[in-house]
Amino acid sequence: MKAIISLSGGLDSTTCLAWAVDRGYDCYCVSFDYGQRHIREMKSARAVARYYKTPLYEIKLNFPWLKKSSLVDKNKKIPNKKYEEILKGSIPSTYVPGRNLVFASILISYADAVKADAVILGPNAIDYSGYPDCRPSFYKALSKAVKYGTEKGDIKIITPIINMSKKEIIKLAVKLKAPLHLSWSCYFGGKKPCGKCDSCKLRAKGFEEAGVKDPIL
Amino acid sequence: MKAIISLSGGLDSTTCLAWAVDRGYDCYCVSFDYGQRHIREMKSARAVARYYKTPLYEIKLNFPWLKKSSLVDKNKKIPNKKYEEILKGSIPSTYVPGRNLVFASILISYADAVKADAVILGPNAIDYSGYPDCRPSFYKALSKAVKYGTEKGDIKIITPIINMSKKEIIKLAVKLKAPLHLSWSCYFGGKKPCGKCDSCKLRAKGFEEAGVKDPIL
Repeated sequence: MKAIISLSGGLDSTTCLAWAVDRGYDCYCVSFDYGQRHIREMKSARAVARYYKTPLYEIKLNFPWLKKSSLVDKNKKIPNKKYEEILKGSIPSTYVPGRNLVFASILISYADAVKADAVILGPNAIDYSGYPDCRPSFYKALSKAVKYGTEKGDIKIITPIINMSKKEIIKLAVKLKAPLHLSWSCYFGGKKPCGKCDSCKLRAKGFEEAGVKDPIL
Repeated sequence: MKAIISLSGGLDSTTCLAWAVDRGYDCYCVSFDYGQRHIREMKSARAVARYYKTPLYEIKLNFPWLKKSSLVDKNKKIPNKKYEEILKGSIPSTYVPGRNLVFASILISYADAVKADAVILGPNAIDYSGYPDCRPSFYKALSKAVKYGTEKGDIKIITPIINMSKKEIIKLAVKLKAPLHLSWSCYFGGKKPCGKCDSCKLRAKGFEEAGVKDPIL
């Protein structure tokens, strides 16, 4: 079984790769440079891919309109919200328009070319920032589009952690011995995680609830 | 009303832009360099966009796996089939894996960023080469994915010519005074259309049936 996997270098995608390896998939990873300010995560993606000895394609996407997102435009402010507010479901300024659709489409193109059985992505709709392209309904509709719009047709869209809490994701990662020490989640691309952005807060809460120490802190 | 339009520089997308302008859409065009051997079509896209005074983004996509297609890999042979065989529905080697899904996703990302009302694409499922990503079922499924997976949600996916014959497309183009003299369809990027590839044959048959002389010949 062959799978194409989106590997950002974050905690979620690292866990997804660990999951796919554990399930016996022959894994091919893709990571994206879309101008994100935490381009530092690509270093993590490379390290994680090396850890699992999987090939990694790095794809550069240069879409000027992505500057709308505070995750791309450094002149915009990244929100610093309380943990409870993050989960309230409004879409924050860090949302990158259509990002997961574009990522998934590129993985599907790759899968259709090499006749892969699955495309694996790491969205999460529980402990997340309210991004619309992390919801199960989106991936369900996309699966139908793949069925009709590709040569292979039967390429599964698998989102292993979409309904897990951050705590559950971390517990799964630990069980699978995923190299979380190589992962990166902070929206700022500094040397150390800021501890203040949505991504850092969700990660910290997850480790706390899982009763595990975050190896990158 | 704002629309994002895929403009390849071919006959179909040129007609779609003419259609959108006629319908009163404020049009923003995107063309793609994905390593196609008929990169010459981008010159046509630029000329058509200039003709309509619409902005045009040129997006470069560098996906190594697209070399699977004879439309990208110059070492592969482009089929030279009879007109009747082209329509038989098997997928030819010129199929570019997931191309229209990737193109559409990028247009949707753009539309979501600028709050556009519609994304307009020019696939055709009548006089076509049997590409799966030209079928109405694919665009219907994609519309659902857009509804759930974007911030704006109500971005229409419009495919104005999907159920038209080439003859009908050309008649529509003539009626709308679309600049077909600037368009390009041949899969080979030469100075003159080859007259032998699927794309040339479908175009020639269309002009013949419409009783119109092809202005680029």
